[in-house]
Amino acid sequence: MARIALDAMGGDFAPRAPLSGALQALRESDSDLAIQLVGRTGTISAELDSLLKGELAADAKQRDRIEIVEAPEVIEMSDKPSAVVRGKPNNSMSIGLKLQLESRSDAFVSAGNTGAQMAASAMLLKLHPGLTRPAIATAFPTRRQPVVVLDAGANVDCSARELLQFAWLGAVYAECVLGRSNPAVGLLSIGEEAEKGNAVVKEANAAFATAGFNFVGNVEGRDIPHGECARGPIDVVVCDGFVGNVVLKFYEGVMPMVLEVLQQHGIDRSQLKDVIRTFDASEYGGAPLLGVRGISMICHGNSTPRAIANAVKAAARAADSGMNALIGERLTSMANAALAAGSVA
Amino acid sequence: MARIALDAMGGDFAPRAPLSGALQALRESDSDLAIQLVGRTGTISAELDSLLKGELAADAKQRDRIEIVEAPEVIEMSDKPSAVVRGKPNNSMSIGLKLQLESRSDAFVSAGNTGAQMAASAMLLKLHPGLTRPAIATAFPTRRQPVVVLDAGANVDCSARELLQFAWLGAVYAECVLGRSNPAVGLLSIGEEAEKGNAVVKEANAAFATAGFNFVGNVEGRDIPHGECARGPIDVVVCDGFVGNVVLKFYEGVMPMVLEVLQQHGIDRSQLKDVIRTFDASEYGGAPLLGVRGISMICHGNSTPRAIANAVKAAARAADSGMNALIGERLTSMANAALAAGSVA
Repeated sequence: MARIALDAMGGDFAPRAPLSGALQALRESDSDLAIQLVGRTGTISAELDSLLKGELAADAKQRDRIEIVEAPEVIEMSDKPSAVVRGKPNNSMSIGLKLQLESRSDAFVSAGNTGAQMAASAMLLKLHPGLTRPAIATAFPTRRQPVVVLDAGANVDCSARELLQFAWLGAVYAECVLGRSNPAVGLLSIGEEAEKGNAVVKEANAAFATAGFNFVGNVEGRDIPHGECARGPIDVVVCDGFVGNVVLKFYEGVMPMVLEVLQQHGIDRSQLKDVIRTFDASEYGGAPLLGVRGISMICHGNSTPRAIANAVKAAARAADSGMNALIGERLTSMANAALAAGSVA
Repeated sequence: MARIALDAMGGDFAPRAPLSGALQALRESDSDLAIQLVGRTGTISAELDSLLKGELAADAKQRDRIEIVEAPEVIEMSDKPSAVVRGKPNNSMSIGLKLQLESRSDAFVSAGNTGAQMAASAMLLKLHPGLTRPAIATAFPTRRQPVVVLDAGANVDCSARELLQFAWLGAVYAECVLGRSNPAVGLLSIGEEAEKGNAVVKEANAAFATAGFNFVGNVEGRDIPHGECARGPIDVVVCDGFVGNVVLKFYEGVMPMVLEVLQQHGIDRSQLKDVIRTFDASEYGGAPLLGVRGISMICHGNSTPRAIANAVKAAARAADSGMNALIGERLTSMANAALAAGSVA
């Protein structure tokens, strides 16, 4: 039984998109899913009533799996992330995350201000021992199975030591949540050779080589959509949050462009339906903020109900898999192995 | 009359691909193109004879527009770029570039060791005044007209001042060679707002704002394939060579992946022919190394004859447009304007 706290006030289409998404997730899940809608009780109740009396009337039977949790303050997209937790202590993100601290909830999902979600998650849930920064992990569709790229935007200027932490997090996530055995970790660079890359990447390459995970060496941009590099399949690609965010958004922009060109060349949109689905970010269920002691799933601000529903279900899978405890355990053993090997100070 | 020096020894399929490409370029050009094949005379002559007696017999009439220039030393892919000019002074790149110094040639094209080509070009041709680094400019196909992204890999750790130089170079190239009037320059970052980005990008944003070109602010990864940002169309995107190279290679890897998925979904390859062509890097004719006092076009190591032919023709267009002198003049006036505005020290 996973209990998922959902930020009812977060995202461009809140509260309607989160509420519709919640009902959709409940409809598509066994009875072992419950949702806490966090935000202004009055707003949520009114919107939920309207949905259940209107277009989603068939979902009325899901109502008793929904709890509404009051959070009177709302985070705006313009709010400064670092100031939000103290400045608006009763915002829907903080209240939603605190449910995990009280063991009342198993995971938190939001489509609101990403910076604020990162800051609130790190401050309230805290980080696993040995970590200095959390990282956003994103699944990229590839020719093979999806590849986890991290960091996708939480950290812009990263040290080699931080990239090493991301590698650990990605490897543990790929193993525990995606079920990849002995996941292959690549370091994103501009050439396969260890001496290629910028100063931080070159330093990271040396640290990765003795860090105790399955490091396949540097990978290049083209290896991500291929899902493999010259040395075999890849499960995890590590980069700083600047590069990761640029590539992620580039990917999101390429597909509409390609589809437009295809249609210009006379290929009918109906033929492309399954293809669009393959590359649709909303099918991939949000991006976990890894490294925090708990589960915090980040959704796009423009998330549709479908995207929210998938994120809620992904959060439930993460909770059911015991991801958080597993990450903690594996991080400790990896950090110990790396210390023993002398690859970190 | 453009005279193009072509490295006959450079690339994965040398000398055959450069020679076939040369013949193809001559066949497709008016009589105002001449090609100098630079490399080992014996090897080149034998290969050229074989092509002209065999599969390219119809091109025998192009033979008198080809000159063979002796360069006894060959640069290997494993040669260290910085050591090549002094260690192998009579290599095909150095000899080919020197033809420009002697006014015997108008441009140089190679598919060989890119690092060596950059080093040799900078050392032999020298940089325009005011520049500290050259940059590789790549044209990305977009929903609109192609966007020039630079640097695409010449410089990995860049200062804000270097990014400013790339912006100047990109703007002048877009204006002089691509014919864009008052080209719009974007700075690649992870958010539109000036305060988003890593430390170098934030500093560069401030410098760009007063540098005297048409700066449209930060652009995001998705704006590249769109060819426009929220503030309008973009002609030039500036980034460091690490990010640019990752995105370029990512782009090259995405298309084969998308086409494979399309075919898996029953879309016939013949329907995709024009689409493949739209996104085929070999159609885009090599990437100029901007900033050097001359013309040096960089081709992929795996260039086909078609890619080489397009690069030769692009080099001829650049030579005919007077690109090099125009870049020198415009750089001087831009640098003076920026100095006057106090945006650079």
